Amino acid sequence: MSGSREKEIYRNELAGRQQVIKNEGLPVIVILEGWSASGKGSALGSIIKFMDPRFFRVYNMDVISEEEKRYPFLYRHAVRMPMKGQFSFFDGSMMDEVTYGYLTGELDRKEYDRRVESIIHYERSLRDNGYLVVKFFLEVSEKEQKKRIDKLLESKNTRWRVNKKDLWQNEHYKKCKKVYEEYLKRTDSEICPWHRIKADDRDQVEAIIANTIIAEIDKAVRNPYKPAVPENPYPLVKMPKLAKIKLKGKTLTDAEYRKQLKKLQKELADLHNRIYRKKIPVIIAYEGWDAAGKGGNIKRVAAALDPRGYEVFPIASPSAEEKNRHFLWRFYNRLPKTGHIAIFDRTWYGRVMVERLEGYCSENDWKRAYNEINEFEKDLTDWGAIVIKFWVQIDKDTQLERFTLRQNTPEKQWKITEEDWRNREKWDLYEKAVNEMIAKTSTEFAPWFVLESNDKKYARIKALEIIIEEIKKRL
Amino acid sequence: MSGSREKEIYRNELAGRQQVIKNEGLPVIVILEGWSASGKGSALGSIIKFMDPRFFRVYNMDVISEEEKRYPFLYRHAVRMPMKGQFSFFDGSMMDEVTYGYLTGELDRKEYDRRVESIIHYERSLRDNGYLVVKFFLEVSEKEQKKRIDKLLESKNTRWRVNKKDLWQNEHYKKCKKVYEEYLKRTDSEICPWHRIKADDRDQVEAIIANTIIAEIDKAVRNPYKPAVPENPYPLVKMPKLAKIKLKGKTLTDAEYRKQLKKLQKELADLHNRIYRKKIPVIIAYEGWDAAGKGGNIKRVAAALDPRGYEVFPIASPSAEEKNRHFLWRFYNRLPKTGHIAIFDRTWYGRVMVERLEGYCSENDWKRAYNEINEFEKDLTDWGAIVIKFWVQIDKDTQLERFTLRQNTPEKQWKITEEDWRNREKWDLYEKAVNEMIAKTSTEFAPWFVLESNDKKYARIKALEIIIEEIKKRL
Repeated sequence: MSGSREKEIYRNELAGRQQVIKNEGLPVIVILEGWSASGKGSALGSIIKFMDPRFFRVYNMDVISEEEKRYPFLYRHAVRMPMKGQFSFFDGSMMDEVTYGYLTGELDRKEYDRRVESIIHYERSLRDNGYLVVKFFLEVSEKEQKKRIDKLLESKNTRWRVNKKDLWQNEHYKKCKKVYEEYLKRTDSEICPWHRIKADDRDQVEAIIANTIIAEIDKAVRNPYKPAVPENPYPLVKMPKLAKIKLKGKTLTDAEYRKQLKKLQKELADLHNRIYRKKIPVIIAYEGWDAAGKGGNIKRVAAALDPRGYEVFPIASPSAEEKNRHFLWRFYNRLPKTGHIAIFDRTWYGRVMVERLEGYCSENDWKRAYNEINEFEKDLTDWGAIVIKFWVQIDKDTQLERFTLRQNTPEKQWKITEEDWRNREKWDLYEKAVNEMIAKTSTEFAPWFVLESNDKKYARIKALEIIIEEIKKRL
Repeated sequence: MSGSREKEIYRNELAGRQQVIKNEGLPVIVILEGWSASGKGSALGSIIKFMDPRFFRVYNMDVISEEEKRYPFLYRHAVRMPMKGQFSFFDGSMMDEVTYGYLTGELDRKEYDRRVESIIHYERSLRDNGYLVVKFFLEVSEKEQKKRIDKLLESKNTRWRVNKKDLWQNEHYKKCKKVYEEYLKRTDSEICPWHRIKADDRDQVEAIIANTIIAEIDKAVRNPYKPAVPENPYPLVKMPKLAKIKLKGKTLTDAEYRKQLKKLQKELADLHNRIYRKKIPVIIAYEGWDAAGKGGNIKRVAAALDPRGYEVFPIASPSAEEKNRHFLWRFYNRLPKTGHIAIFDRTWYGRVMVERLEGYCSENDWKRAYNEINEFEKDLTDWGAIVIKFWVQIDKDTQLERFTLRQNTPEKQWKITEEDWRNREKWDLYEKAVNEMIAKTSTEFAPWFVLESNDKKYARIKALEIIIEEIKKRL
């Protein structure tokens, strides 16, 4: 079989697999890593030539923008994950980014190790959530790399393609190789294995990449992967069950409330200024019963903040774009920049509450989610974020009172829907889910705080106090 | 009436208006411009304190990121427009940006004038599309400004809030004033008037802003604004009606096609390299009959391009987020960066085709849209973009053949839907709409090109030739 005939075959097959992944709703991430001048870009270029450009995206991850630097390092990769049925091709990705950071000394060993761990978790979490991740590492020898770089430097039409990093890499080939080998070993796993390609023969590279992608898709379609539910590896804070939380007596007089509110809002305003200048990101997550008073609570916190430095995200059911991606994708897209505050009115915990109870995800999905969420929050705190999670607690009678009041007050009727009444019927199921959630995700780095909200004033003051305390700890 | 009692009233009223705009589906843009140290930020801060933070966003537009610099100047403002029923507050906006650019000499007079014109069009287009735009300009005297800046400089807690721009402005107060006055005059209109506020008394500022917003909302709700359909001011290229376009004989042999395709793709690949280095953005828009061959045409163009430098956007019906904003919003969000190519498979012209014919917008909406689109494309070309618009033309018999083939070929059945057949029944109505669209939007800066596609090969070669020619003109 001649080379060009072979080429035609795999190109057609790959184009055909686009239809397959579309029909199967399979999202595919192809990661091309490798040495500079190993031909990643051109191999990628020829592979996609025969694919339908409406159903894939190619990302060159080489340059990290100033904007991106203000987010966790995984952010720029995570926001680019494909929808179900589509491809994302990464020309250089997380490996290139963190190994280069480590090699140049920008990342110390501890931070580097932490990031490698995050990458391992992240890739596993993608795979567990239905993504096919196909990783390639293209190798060239020191000599061959030098030859290729020199060739590019010869002509002014190609010279611009050689950058400082490429030259640096060739000069420090052995040092790089050691780091790469270690990285490849650590991040190699059965579910996200590395495909290593000797990249000296360019035509071979294209054929191997294409045929590997085809084979991996077929394998994923034939044997849908069944993820395990991992054990939680993080130290947890022991939390009481909801039923044990004392609500009675947790009240404030109007006078006391107004006095405290004023004092605490002023204090928080000051702290907001300081975290802004110190570039510390803050994430405040609100969950709680319907009518528990989340909205009013958030309002009192937000009122203390400089409007240029915070955002409030009300989280409703996901859009089609969001539904067709990893459940954390929409939260990656709403992270605060360094120095900013993001307040979430409902959160990623929807996965283990409403999605669990309404059957929007499988049992395996929500059982895995505790760990996936802990990893996500670990990454956030490692990045430097202060993560504060509130459970706004009321009892069942108080909810009924508030529902009834809403129903009977014309200006408040919009706040109450049929769905609220339906959810109320499932109070016990929710309570069980919430107890499990709080028990399993109260990590030391991101514990839950319960706000007793039968008296909303009490809950507001307590929220402000906790936020202030948590920020102070970090200043 | 005491000041604090008055304050309580307008704060409550403003909070109540959030419910009003939500019920009415009215999107509100509040723009705060003014002198440095005129107290924009703090006035804004106190106004929003009593609003529900889930339904507004505050944007400080002071710093233009490196990323944003790679888009048209309106981009960063347009992508922040609110959804129906929500507020966007801009602390400093387009005025601050362009006047400062002009004052520092970064923008020459011609470019400055062009941008002011764009702003006038943009604000009118927002208003015409249902947005309420409330603009404030806060004034302080030279002396008062100096006093305030000096006060901020005194303490290390406030010193960081004074930047070079503030100092520069005070040093060049008279020069700035002249430019501001001229700008305010040019951009003042009945539908987007300026509210000028003497900002010496801070409490007064807050009250005036709040009461003005309340009054403007009430006015907008009571007297819904009926926009006029403006005359097209741009020079047009005369175009033939679809019925006059000769399709017969526009064919290529397989051999000729393959030869041409190879040659042209190579040429385009070269040009892509050059526009990338010269940072010229390119926008290629495809419209055409169902089954005219848009997808295959795009594929041949994309195959010539470096995957790191282009994106293909298939445009389907808008998401909820998109539907609730100006119809051009989703296209602002998909513009290419400088040096990149964006290919649109269906475009903003949906407004004057499917939205018109299916009644998704009002008659006034689609009639205005010709002009709104021309302005949008004018801004794009002023920015430096090459805008290429293709109408892919086939006759009705050819469509029937292709529909039938799709229906009868299992691998192609997904490409044909009931909707395609329904659209086909409306061929004559569509033809009329397309003729009108092409006649009214073939501006000299962004004309339509017709691709005769009864023979798809012919259309692909012609598309490549046109793209190459248009790019060459600009190199």
